[in-house]
Amino acid sequence: MSIQEIGRGPSRATLSRVAEEASVSISTVSKVLNGRSGVSDATRARVEELLKDHRYNRRNSGQTVAPLVELVFQQIDGAWAVEIIQGVERVARENGMSVILTESGDRHSPAATWIDGVLQRRPAGVILILSDLSPSQKHQLRTRKIPFVLVDPTGDPAPDVPSIGSANWNGGYLATRHLVELGHRQIAMITGPEDIMCSTARLSGYRAALEGAGIPFRADYVTTGNFDYESGVARARELLELEDAPTAIFAGSDLQALGVYEAARSAGISIPDELSVVGYDDLKLASWAGPPLTTVRQPLTEMAEEATRLVLRLRTEEQVDNLRLDLATRLIVRGSTRPLS
Amino acid sequence: MSIQEIGRGPSRATLSRVAEEASVSISTVSKVLNGRSGVSDATRARVEELLKDHRYNRRNSGQTVAPLVELVFQQIDGAWAVEIIQGVERVARENGMSVILTESGDRHSPAATWIDGVLQRRPAGVILILSDLSPSQKHQLRTRKIPFVLVDPTGDPAPDVPSIGSANWNGGYLATRHLVELGHRQIAMITGPEDIMCSTARLSGYRAALEGAGIPFRADYVTTGNFDYESGVARARELLELEDAPTAIFAGSDLQALGVYEAARSAGISIPDELSVVGYDDLKLASWAGPPLTTVRQPLTEMAEEATRLVLRLRTEEQVDNLRLDLATRLIVRGSTRPLS
Repeated sequence: MSIQEIGRGPSRATLSRVAEEASVSISTVSKVLNGRSGVSDATRARVEELLKDHRYNRRNSGQTVAPLVELVFQQIDGAWAVEIIQGVERVARENGMSVILTESGDRHSPAATWIDGVLQRRPAGVILILSDLSPSQKHQLRTRKIPFVLVDPTGDPAPDVPSIGSANWNGGYLATRHLVELGHRQIAMITGPEDIMCSTARLSGYRAALEGAGIPFRADYVTTGNFDYESGVARARELLELEDAPTAIFAGSDLQALGVYEAARSAGISIPDELSVVGYDDLKLASWAGPPLTTVRQPLTEMAEEATRLVLRLRTEEQVDNLRLDLATRLIVRGSTRPLS
Repeated sequence: MSIQEIGRGPSRATLSRVAEEASVSISTVSKVLNGRSGVSDATRARVEELLKDHRYNRRNSGQTVAPLVELVFQQIDGAWAVEIIQGVERVARENGMSVILTESGDRHSPAATWIDGVLQRRPAGVILILSDLSPSQKHQLRTRKIPFVLVDPTGDPAPDVPSIGSANWNGGYLATRHLVELGHRQIAMITGPEDIMCSTARLSGYRAALEGAGIPFRADYVTTGNFDYESGVARARELLELEDAPTAIFAGSDLQALGVYEAARSAGISIPDELSVVGYDDLKLASWAGPPLTTVRQPLTEMAEEATRLVLRLRTEEQVDNLRLDLATRLIVRGSTRPLS
C-alpha cells in the first residue's frame, strides 16, 4: 500500500498528555487512535473524550492516508447501487484513488466493527449511501481527519454534516402534477419506508401537487412500500382492489413501478390504457420496461460524483462552503402515462 | 492501512544479485518490485526477467499484503455487475477483507497503469471479470505472489490460470431444447460478442440441441449482439422482419431478451402467444419482466463467491487442485415461452 503523508507526524506531546490524563500508556492511546483491539470500551471512550478535549483533530493530526475512497452501502443491491458505484469509481480514478466497497448491513449506522476497519484502512474519505453515522462514529472519523459525506441521508443531518441529495419534494410534485395535467383525479401513491427522508419529501410533493389542483387528499390512496419490486406488487394489488380504484399510481421508485406493472398485468389491467404509472429514479431498466416507464430522473451517478469530489475537497481544504447540495430532478415522460379517457 | 506479514522479509541477497546483474541500484530493483515510477521500460523489463530467473516468487518473497481483495471489471455496468460484487463482498467480509473495485476499461487486459496500482496496493488477491491478463501482467503478479482468478474468461485460459465459469454449453443446450420440446422449429439465436468464450459455448449448445432434434441449422437465424438491451432490440427487429420469421428467439442474455420484448411490442407481436423468448443469466429483472422471462440461470453470485474463496486459498496454500471450476446452469421456466400453436 502506498502511503502518503498529509502534514507532520502526530504530536507526541499531545499523546503523552492524553495518556497521562487517562492514566493509560501511550501505546493504549495509539491503539485507540488506530482502531486496534485490546482496549476496554470504557478506556476507549475516555481516551476518545480526551483526544476531543485536546482538539487532536485540529492542529496535531498528521496521520498517513491511503489513496482509497471508502463507499458504504447498507446493502449492495440492484441497479440503483451500480449507478452510485460508477460515479464514485470514475471520480476516484480521476484522482488516482481506488474505491473500497463495504456493506454495513444496517440502515441507520454501520456496525461497530466497521469503524475499526476504517481507522485501520485510513481512507482519504468515506461516502455513506442511504445511511447515517452515530455521534461517536462521526467523532472518531473527525478525530482522525477522515472526511465523510452522506448521500441521500436517512434522517435530516446536522448542518455541519456534508451531504448530497436530490430535489425529492420537487420530484414528487412533478410526477403528480403530470398525472393531474393528464386529467387524473384518482391518483394513488406507493411511498418508500417512512423513516427515510427522501421518501417523506416525495410524499410531501405529491400532497402539494394534489392540493394545488384542488384534489382532496385520500388516506386510502397512500400506502407504504419498501422501494422494492415485491412491495410494489403487493401494494398495487391492494390499491387496484379498492372499490374506487385509482386511475393512476405514482410508484415512488422504479422497482415499485415494475411491481405495479405485474399487479396490473395479472389483473388484466392495461398500462397505459386503463392505468397510468409513474416511477422514480430513472434506472436503466425504466426505459426497458414494456411500456417504457414515465419516471422522475434522479441523477444518481452525478450525485455519487459530487459526493466523491466533496469528500476529496474536505480532505485538503480548510474551509468548504456548501456542505449540502441537492441536485435537480426532472420528469421523463415515456409510454406508461396517458390522458384519462 | 493495517499491514500483515506473510513470511519473512524479502531477501536482500537476491535483490542485490539482481541489481548487480542488471547493472542498476538496489533502489531501482525495489522500485520495479513495488510498481513505482522512475524506471525506464527497458530497465523494468530487464529487472523483471532477472527476478523471474532468480525465482524471486518461490522462496524469497515476503512482501507485506493488505487485507484487500481487488475486483476488476472491464466496465461496471448493470445488474450483472451487482450480483458479482455481492458475492465477492460477502466472502471477503467473512475473511476480514475489504473489496477494492477497479474498472479496467478494456475487455482483453487492464491498462498498464492498473498493474502499477495493484503492485502498490498489494492486495491479498485479484479477481478479474470477463477479462484476461497479458503474459507480463501475469508474471508481475506471480513475482509478487499476488494470486489471481479469472471469472468467465474471455479466451481459453492456460491450464495454470485459475478460473471460475459456468456450464455455458449446457445452458445454450437447455434453452434450445426447451423451445424444441414446445414444438418450435424456427428458433433464432442472438449471441454475445464472438470473441468471448462463454458466448461461443452457448451458441455451440444451441447448435447441438437443434442437431439433436434433426432441425437444420440456418445461418440467417443466428445474429451477433453485444449482451446489451440495445443490440437485443436491433437484432430482434431484423429477425422479426425476415420473410420466414422465427417463432422463438433464444436471446443469449437477459438484457438482450428485454430488447426482444421491446422489438416485439413495437411490432405488435405478443409474447408468448406469437413469439417465445428465452434469456440467459437470470438477473433479478428477468422475473420482473412482463411476462416474466424464461431464462437460463447462471449463478453469478455463487461464481463470485467461489472465485473469492479460490483466490484466498491460493494465497496461503502451496498446492491447490481444481484451478478451474464451472458451476452448473439450469433452465428457469416462466411466462415468456409456450407451445407452438
